[in-house]
Amino acid sequence: MDINALRDAHPDHWMRATAIRALTLDAVAAANSGHSGMPIGMADVATVLWSKHLKFDAKTPTWADRDRFILSAGHGSMLLYALLYLSGDEQITLEQVKNFRQWGSRTAGHPENFHADAIEMTTGPLGQGIAHSVGFAMAEEILRARFGKAAMNHHTYVIAGDGCLMEGVSQEALGLAGRYELGRLIVMWDNNDITIDGKVSLSDRTDQVARFKASGWHVQEIDGHDPEAIDAAITAAKKVTDKPSMIACKTHIALGHAAQDTSKGHGALTNAEQNADAKAGWGWTTGPFEVPAEIKSWWEEIGTRGAAEREAWGGRIASMSDRKQAEFARTMAGDAPKKLSSVIRALKKQSTETEPKVATRKASEMVLEVINPVMPETVGGSADLTGSNNTKTGDMGVFDTDNRGGRYVYWGIREHGMSSAMNGMGLHGGIRPYGGTFMAFTDYARPAMRLAALQQTPTVFVMTHDSIGLGEDGPTHQPIEHLAISRATPNTLVFRPADVVETAEAWEIALTQKTTPSVLSLTRQNVPTVRTQHKTNNLVEKGAYVLADAEGKRQVILMATGSEVAIALEARDLLQAEGIGTRVVSMPCFELFEAQDEAYRKRVLPGGPVRVAVEAATRFGWDKWLLGERGREAKAGFVGMDGFGASAPAETLYEQFGITAEGVAAKAKSLL
Amino acid sequence: MDINALRDAHPDHWMRATAIRALTLDAVAAANSGHSGMPIGMADVATVLWSKHLKFDAKTPTWADRDRFILSAGHGSMLLYALLYLSGDEQITLEQVKNFRQWGSRTAGHPENFHADAIEMTTGPLGQGIAHSVGFAMAEEILRARFGKAAMNHHTYVIAGDGCLMEGVSQEALGLAGRYELGRLIVMWDNNDITIDGKVSLSDRTDQVARFKASGWHVQEIDGHDPEAIDAAITAAKKVTDKPSMIACKTHIALGHAAQDTSKGHGALTNAEQNADAKAGWGWTTGPFEVPAEIKSWWEEIGTRGAAEREAWGGRIASMSDRKQAEFARTMAGDAPKKLSSVIRALKKQSTETEPKVATRKASEMVLEVINPVMPETVGGSADLTGSNNTKTGDMGVFDTDNRGGRYVYWGIREHGMSSAMNGMGLHGGIRPYGGTFMAFTDYARPAMRLAALQQTPTVFVMTHDSIGLGEDGPTHQPIEHLAISRATPNTLVFRPADVVETAEAWEIALTQKTTPSVLSLTRQNVPTVRTQHKTNNLVEKGAYVLADAEGKRQVILMATGSEVAIALEARDLLQAEGIGTRVVSMPCFELFEAQDEAYRKRVLPGGPVRVAVEAATRFGWDKWLLGERGREAKAGFVGMDGFGASAPAETLYEQFGITAEGVAAKAKSLL
Repeated sequence: MDINALRDAHPDHWMRATAIRALTLDAVAAANSGHSGMPIGMADVATVLWSKHLKFDAKTPTWADRDRFILSAGHGSMLLYALLYLSGDEQITLEQVKNFRQWGSRTAGHPENFHADAIEMTTGPLGQGIAHSVGFAMAEEILRARFGKAAMNHHTYVIAGDGCLMEGVSQEALGLAGRYELGRLIVMWDNNDITIDGKVSLSDRTDQVARFKASGWHVQEIDGHDPEAIDAAITAAKKVTDKPSMIACKTHIALGHAAQDTSKGHGALTNAEQNADAKAGWGWTTGPFEVPAEIKSWWEEIGTRGAAEREAWGGRIASMSDRKQAEFARTMAGDAPKKLSSVIRALKKQSTETEPKVATRKASEMVLEVINPVMPETVGGSADLTGSNNTKTGDMGVFDTDNRGGRYVYWGIREHGMSSAMNGMGLHGGIRPYGGTFMAFTDYARPAMRLAALQQTPTVFVMTHDSIGLGEDGPTHQPIEHLAISRATPNTLVFRPADVVETAEAWEIALTQKTTPSVLSLTRQNVPTVRTQHKTNNLVEKGAYVLADAEGKRQVILMATGSEVAIALEARDLLQAEGIGTRVVSMPCFELFEAQDEAYRKRVLPGGPVRVAVEAATRFGWDKWLLGERGREAKAGFVGMDGFGASAPAETLYEQFGITAEGVAAKAKSLL
Repeated sequence: MDINALRDAHPDHWMRATAIRALTLDAVAAANSGHSGMPIGMADVATVLWSKHLKFDAKTPTWADRDRFILSAGHGSMLLYALLYLSGDEQITLEQVKNFRQWGSRTAGHPENFHADAIEMTTGPLGQGIAHSVGFAMAEEILRARFGKAAMNHHTYVIAGDGCLMEGVSQEALGLAGRYELGRLIVMWDNNDITIDGKVSLSDRTDQVARFKASGWHVQEIDGHDPEAIDAAITAAKKVTDKPSMIACKTHIALGHAAQDTSKGHGALTNAEQNADAKAGWGWTTGPFEVPAEIKSWWEEIGTRGAAEREAWGGRIASMSDRKQAEFARTMAGDAPKKLSSVIRALKKQSTETEPKVATRKASEMVLEVINPVMPETVGGSADLTGSNNTKTGDMGVFDTDNRGGRYVYWGIREHGMSSAMNGMGLHGGIRPYGGTFMAFTDYARPAMRLAALQQTPTVFVMTHDSIGLGEDGPTHQPIEHLAISRATPNTLVFRPADVVETAEAWEIALTQKTTPSVLSLTRQNVPTVRTQHKTNNLVEKGAYVLADAEGKRQVILMATGSEVAIALEARDLLQAEGIGTRVVSMPCFELFEAQDEAYRKRVLPGGPVRVAVEAATRFGWDKWLLGERGREAKAGFVGMDGFGASAPAETLYEQFGITAEGVAAKAKSLL
């Protein structure tokens, strides 16, 4: 690559972009770790995008109508940090750049949205940025339809690498964005032909241009080092409003460095001599972390350019009706409406009176039927299991090309893409996403479910068919370890409600979270109402509580969740009939129980009695509650699954695997 | 659809295919559950494939050189059961078909490979069949290169539905098959335009033909009810040897039934009147489960047609050298060579002498360097992290279009596709696959990892960078819950070895499994050799063992795995220096420890002493060992992670999160 020619062709642009390159080299060298090549290669694209197109105001990174910029190739985090520092972000300072990848700094190895307001999402696991961006773009469409383009009217830009496009989830994203004609989604592909193991051709020969077109995208191919071509392509992409756009930017990884166009260039370029040579070749003469004043002030000017537009937007918001303003503010803040708790309470009261015997997936639908009318910010959906997940209520409308205000999304058979896009909607703000699939397919959604927890977005994962109780579909569809998987994940609330009342309480908690995702584990099969006495309080909020206490001397405590709570109650009847005092504790949420004070936990689970837990799943993770948290004589048993399930009617399976009232009672008696 | 016209055009074919349709209707009606529409729609394709192309011998379903038939759209399991019953499979009898989806039957809701020899793999989770098929086809290429086409010379056929193609993993499979020019892989797409939620267009408009072509596939489009077109297309596909083939078969789901071309047709068609009407329309006049004798005998004839070819194959095998025959038989049986244990022992002995301080990922490479030369059936690879996962050894060669015998695969950034394809290789037989990625990306591979466990294939997942010890890449890359995820999964061995010796022992166990996959959790950072005394026995085989016993009165037991074993040993030094007798138990494999008898477990973890576990991961799942399995006074603590990690140098992170010898000693003392 002839660096001189590039520099001479656009000298001003070159030096502005090279500020990114130099800061990257310096920060990675100081940290002695990181990824140098991508920011160096994509500096031109990023400079043109940020300076000529991206709508932002560096001093107000939380402006609701800013363009969203997603660095899907998150390992190139220095690209983002350099852009933020240069343009005057108040959190990503020079000091932070100098502390790249160090303890306590905002400039983590991969961009973390909780470290700085201007970081839209956490990226690093490949493909997630492009998959989340579908949700950002859908959120914008839905909010524009709801609040008008005076309030919401922006683009979503993504920089994605070869890795992002090789991950399967990218195809789910492509399909969704193409189907829903997300014309304001613009993806810039860093087409540098290099992966960690070598040339892309080592493992892939996919014609990406043809592939994007096959999914309904508008595609352009450009020289990613030519600022005029970049500008023209972005301009053209913005004009195409009925298709998402992909711009294939042919670039050289680690441009102008000895490692240019090699796998080595992907990683940390720390050789001082080579780095000095690269800088000399670029024409960059200042010292480490030093950006010439005129370049820095040009960038800062870019950072302020959106201020007027933001102010105009503020004026438009202020001219909306008070009610609309308040509603816009409330939904963008993620606050639940006051009416939520009253509709939940009313449903609870009604259910304790009528005692419906329904599956908890149906219970969830009953809850959504009362919630969705009072929470217009909810957007529901399912990965092609709408009738099974019971996620669609009457009033929602269907999101489509001719109904942008529709609040129900047919995600297709794309659990991963759905989950990523839901996170994206939540991160955009203004939307409360929930979506369903079978619980066993937690596996497909895992990368997005973990990211929801890490990046603190309160997505609600509606996981139905949550045990062998789904019956004949057999072991591929029967979750065994999936409750444990979500319970083991930090910052995740896992609810397994026992009936309509607990389901309503779980939803109330899930929809009032601001930084924690929730998993609702729901049955396919019918279960009786176990909460037959109305309580105004949300008992699920305690995580676990005494549902039925022992009569006489307390000899046994049965702990259960979801569909097994009714079995525990039956077992209690059997035990009490033999004079064995038995308490039943419903444990719909381990995490919330763990968060209670020790006194409460001990009141619910006092030492002494035999403990038996019942859950049609693995024991893994239950021993904490079975064996006590510390010093007690533990006599404990578990009734559940110790292997995969099988294909047969649900009742047969419960019988064959011994998850019955008789089995539970026998287990308790064997321990007495 | 004019059924009469179809029937009149090819009357014999029609009735033979309709035997599948009728059996499906009857079995689903009897079970009152299942999926009727797909087998009915794809009966023509399947009939032509099985009768004119598929190389099989119904009486010898385990014939090593049979064509593989993968029903990726596993919900249409009755298609496979009908084909097997009709063609004379001895396990899938009429009785089994009548017991579709019942307890104890071989005819599970979705095909389960452990229920019948002729079922190549477990399908149901969508996309897995097509993704696994890449591994089947690669295994055939590799074995053909190794043993010659006299021994191995077959095709892999797949039936996939719209759901399979919408799942992201399908793109990973497409990319791999196209890149590696798997010309003997032929996918028939059931292009019926219907998903559970409605028309495919509700959620997808992808041009699948263009998409497959973009990934380098040969594509044909045909009427999936025209037997001549089907035959011609398969014939043409077989002639294309340098590209995988996709045949888009336009079909009508639930053809000729009232539910034809509707979502309802996807599920269980149980309306007796509608079913009777459908049969009448098809011209099917016999009673439930009755197949006219001439049709049944025609099918049985199909089932025997391959016998001569199988015998000829047997003759060719018999004419190979004794040594080659024995090697072919050994590798197809999945037996480890005798030399394995001796090379492992030698490496262990050497390591106890030299005490290398290396990362366990490097230790794994050292093990592979001695294993791969004596196990020519191993095929290694990495999802674009070869240098990080340390999975490539010198002697392997690289699998490529011009080197089919190469034993190393560059999988690209496709953790999910890699894992599925590895399972496929193992299921094909003759290959011992292992492959690497970062442990946090267990999430991407989960659907395939679970399927490995369920379908009992001993894939080895090499998961490096297994804790905060990876340092600066930060929380997206730092596993916290991933040990728990794999430990919670049934039929999975999870190894977290502490040094070279334990790593060698873990590999030896993993490579001698026949029905259980293994996960190797390996460090990025260097660790000292802790096994400094040579033992011939494989201590990891016990799951946990006393690494260093207490001097003086045993007051404390420290349990640790992997990189934390060295920390526990240091903590022991601190405690012993204060006169506190401390035992250190290394616990490289929970599952194997659990499998030991109670006496051994109690010898290793006797009641009485304070227990502290150290693992740079979540506590979730540890309480079983911390609190004892039953009745004992438990004073227990855990030193590990209770949230996500952070971006900083590894040593800083261990310090900041308190996972240090001092922290462990303090925790133990606080409990005394």
